[in-house]
Amino acid sequence: MEPGKVHSSKSYGGEDAYLRSAWYPVAWSSELVDGILPRRIAGEPVLLYRQKNGTPAAMFDRCPHRFAPLSRGCIVGDYIRCGYHGLTFDAKGGCIANPLGEGYIPETASVRAFPTEEKFGLVWIWRGDHEKAEPKNIPDLSAFVPGPTAEFKTAYIHVRADYRLAIDNLMDLSHSVFLHAETLAPVTPGLRDAVVRVSRNGERIKATIEMKNIDIGDGERRDQQLDTEWFAPGVVALTFAQVPHGELLGNEAIHALHIITPETERSSHYLFGSTVDGREGMTRDPFVDEDEPMLAACQERMGEEDFWSLRPVILPNDAAAIQVRRQLEKMIRNEQASQSLVASARLLNVINQRSIE
Amino acid sequence: MEPGKVHSSKSYGGEDAYLRSAWYPVAWSSELVDGILPRRIAGEPVLLYRQKNGTPAAMFDRCPHRFAPLSRGCIVGDYIRCGYHGLTFDAKGGCIANPLGEGYIPETASVRAFPTEEKFGLVWIWRGDHEKAEPKNIPDLSAFVPGPTAEFKTAYIHVRADYRLAIDNLMDLSHSVFLHAETLAPVTPGLRDAVVRVSRNGERIKATIEMKNIDIGDGERRDQQLDTEWFAPGVVALTFAQVPHGELLGNEAIHALHIITPETERSSHYLFGSTVDGREGMTRDPFVDEDEPMLAACQERMGEEDFWSLRPVILPNDAAAIQVRRQLEKMIRNEQASQSLVASARLLNVINQRSIE
Amino acid sequence: MEPGKVHSSKSYGGEDAYLRSAWYPVAWSSELVDGILPRRIAGEPVLLYRQKNGTPAAMFDRCPHRFAPLSRGCIVGDYIRCGYHGLTFDAKGGCIANPLGEGYIPETASVRAFPTEEKFGLVWIWRGDHEKAEPKNIPDLSAFVPGPTAEFKTAYIHVRADYRLAIDNLMDLSHSVFLHAETLAPVTPGLRDAVVRVSRNGERIKATIEMKNIDIGDGERRDQQLDTEWFAPGVVALTFAQVPHGELLGNEAIHALHIITPETERSSHYLFGSTVDGREGMTRDPFVDEDEPMLAACQERMGEEDFWSLRPVILPNDAAAIQVRRQLEKMIRNEQASQSLVASARLLNVINQRSIE
Repeated sequence: MEPGKVHSSKSYGGEDAYLRSAWYPVAWSSELVDGILPRRIAGEPVLLYRQKNGTPAAMFDRCPHRFAPLSRGCIVGDYIRCGYHGLTFDAKGGCIANPLGEGYIPETASVRAFPTEEKFGLVWIWRGDHEKAEPKNIPDLSAFVPGPTAEFKTAYIHVRADYRLAIDNLMDLSHSVFLHAETLAPVTPGLRDAVVRVSRNGERIKATIEMKNIDIGDGERRDQQLDTEWFAPGVVALTFAQVPHGELLGNEAIHALHIITPETERSSHYLFGSTVDGREGMTRDPFVDEDEPMLAACQERMGEEDFWSLRPVILPNDAAAIQVRRQLEKMIRNEQASQSLVASARLLNVINQRSIE
Repeated sequence: MEPGKVHSSKSYGGEDAYLRSAWYPVAWSSELVDGILPRRIAGEPVLLYRQKNGTPAAMFDRCPHRFAPLSRGCIVGDYIRCGYHGLTFDAKGGCIANPLGEGYIPETASVRAFPTEEKFGLVWIWRGDHEKAEPKNIPDLSAFVPGPTAEFKTAYIHVRADYRLAIDNLMDLSHSVFLHAETLAPVTPGLRDAVVRVSRNGERIKATIEMKNIDIGDGERRDQQLDTEWFAPGVVALTFAQVPHGELLGNEAIHALHIITPETERSSHYLFGSTVDGREGMTRDPFVDEDEPMLAACQERMGEEDFWSLRPVILPNDAAAIQVRRQLEKMIRNEQASQSLVASARLLNVINQRSIE
Repeated sequence: MEPGKVHSSKSYGGEDAYLRSAWYPVAWSSELVDGILPRRIAGEPVLLYRQKNGTPAAMFDRCPHRFAPLSRGCIVGDYIRCGYHGLTFDAKGGCIANPLGEGYIPETASVRAFPTEEKFGLVWIWRGDHEKAEPKNIPDLSAFVPGPTAEFKTAYIHVRADYRLAIDNLMDLSHSVFLHAETLAPVTPGLRDAVVRVSRNGERIKATIEMKNIDIGDGERRDQQLDTEWFAPGVVALTFAQVPHGELLGNEAIHALHIITPETERSSHYLFGSTVDGREGMTRDPFVDEDEPMLAACQERMGEEDFWSLRPVILPNDAAAIQVRRQLEKMIRNEQASQSLVASARLLNVINQRSIE
């Protein structure tokens, strides 16, 4: 049995809401400095820390002894020591010391660790089976993150809504016309009449909004293009390019990362990163002051209901968001089916062996 | 199908707690001025606004597209525009504009509207089937609301208790002796020994407390009478008359409206209106400082339990309150039975037609 | 039927969590002075007050009429009068007055009273059947409470955790090494290597930690012994003795009471009493600033899960805590079995009588 697996429990819920076999970006590298960073991911309490050589590690944030959050303990070298009775765990979740009494360590004294990678300025954890954790499956975000010398603005924002509501928000940027009427909308006056075009690249889904011959207010007319590309489960990479009308769109685009990682079934972590600030001259922060409260209000109005059970009206501009939801549901369903298959095979194996005996 | 009906959902609960086919007073006219007024009624989020000609309108406060509260949007002429993606609805809940992209409006893009009336200084909504909404069935409160030139003091108070607990409170004013010992009780010293007498007028139920030959403290003896008349589901009209002992009670009564409209199964809206202030010389507001905290405390002690399942002790002075509860339950039961009947008839019709085919 | 029994209800839950037939210490005598003291015990709202002769009384804190907390009322002589409609109850829960109207008192107008005793500076209530309430079964705490002239420091602390988590905490004081590293640990440096030894005395369970030849920091070496003895359901009596190494441990011990009484399934009352302050020179209060937050954090991490269903890792130092949990579970199970037996016998009796008729 995988270490610590017995300690995760139904009470953290959301089996149908989250993909297990996936790399989840859980923090900006810059957020993980000296101490322990606790962060609930997809319903489960996780703690993050750096080992002595700087490598990040992640484990289930609950001691298997008396259920103390290990994040209330401290880092001792490469290890985490519980702040209650001192049980000490290595980065793989194995208990390597019981400093009390005669020091006996039961075999079951382990905590679930998460394979962890650091890439593109982000710390990623793998929630699925350890043997399937392939760092090469981390989506390639190199185009969206500048080299180490370039300036890269990052932010963490807590969102009081399911991660899929926040992804919907990003896959249909036309909401900018109304929700961001006084902040972002003036930059892209063509959004009102634009139509979202959807394209796929394997499991990735991209929404493209072309705005041709747009009067951006100073008499000059431009061609603009907004792309938001989704990588499962919750990375959305944004590219905004513009040229004088009629010229060829080149590489001079603005890139930004909008990463939504589920926290609970009704809240998420939003990791924002961009080479430009994008908020020059604004008196409100578009996401903090406009998107987040709107998403929280939608979540509140949905109550305990499932999105589809409420029969949402589908508009043309929802095409990308709906495809993302369908793709994600398909991936979760496939994963669950394959887990059932594995379980059935194991059971069959047991039965066969018994028949032989 | 009625517009928006699919968007109301079980999560708003309370099917047995509320009458559907009823006019609910939801706000004082004076509360509904320029903007949108959101108010949860009988579990459902409702928004209220005035059209250009001043006529109030009410609709389910949730956009059928992404479930944004429409009350976060704005009034545009006679319409409500969602603040998220701009879908625009008329006062009947029909979607009349999708201002984004090519403007396509799906047929299902509507929101449930509530028939709305403005009468006796109150805005009323009808929660039942539209075809049964008869403004003439709004109870006649003309005796309790003065003409437009007279002064009429109104207040809105939020109550942390089920509306029926608040109605119980009004149908047995003898609680005044203890709960309002230092505020209201001195005005009616005869309440302690008085007995509540109940009378009915159709579905209306009236509690009458006669207090004869009462020494009101200044040597003068008076005859007093307190009437509280209930109109389903939650209007209680109060009349207080007094004359020197032995004289005939005339029309010089004080009138007040105590309106309790359910918000959720554990909270209500209390709309108070009166021609007299009634709190002269009091250091506490009887309702805000005395009734409301007591009702909230009773509600807390009831937990999730149904009133009857807790087997309340019934006292003689509860007679009117109990009759009100029984009458309300009967009306809700009849309504549900008739809905089942309609559903059965429809089903039978479908079966018959299929048999013919 | 026992008075007021019908008024307790499932919503107060915890049938498997609490012993019924037990004396629960619910307050220090010094906490119960002039007014009414409301305190939720084992899920049930209870009010405490003193009668004119000083004898404490306890009853279910909910009026059987309209479910007002009786603690919002007042003491009238030896009685409690409801603050809503004035129903008045004696210390045995019988309704002795309805001061309104014609004063009719229904037979069912009673409230559940709890047998109450005052002993060892504590007020105790009995939650089981009245006929089984034997004051002599209150555990003898005379060794832990000084005579009336001696100074005895007491405190009340609210704990956001199940009472059994708090008892675990006390039955394994080795946690002091880590959790109280800067407060209590320096006094007992031998705790780190000590082993908990468990002994039983009937239903009582004692954890003993012997620390021999300990350098307490000033060069002097001592023998120390820490005993924590549990009396069901939640009294833990602590004795700390120390002598110069090699001498015989005498009677010069420090005694303290750590009493944990369940409030709800996720919170408890902690009554602390000691002849010495024990916090000299500390900048933090060990229990308030260290234990309580840790217990609350463990409780939070357990969510709605049962302790055993989370498969806690058992360490050698847990021996006493685990025996306490097992003993308590056994007592609760026995009690429930005997209640089923009584119910079956009653049913059989009814059947037999009917057969005869």
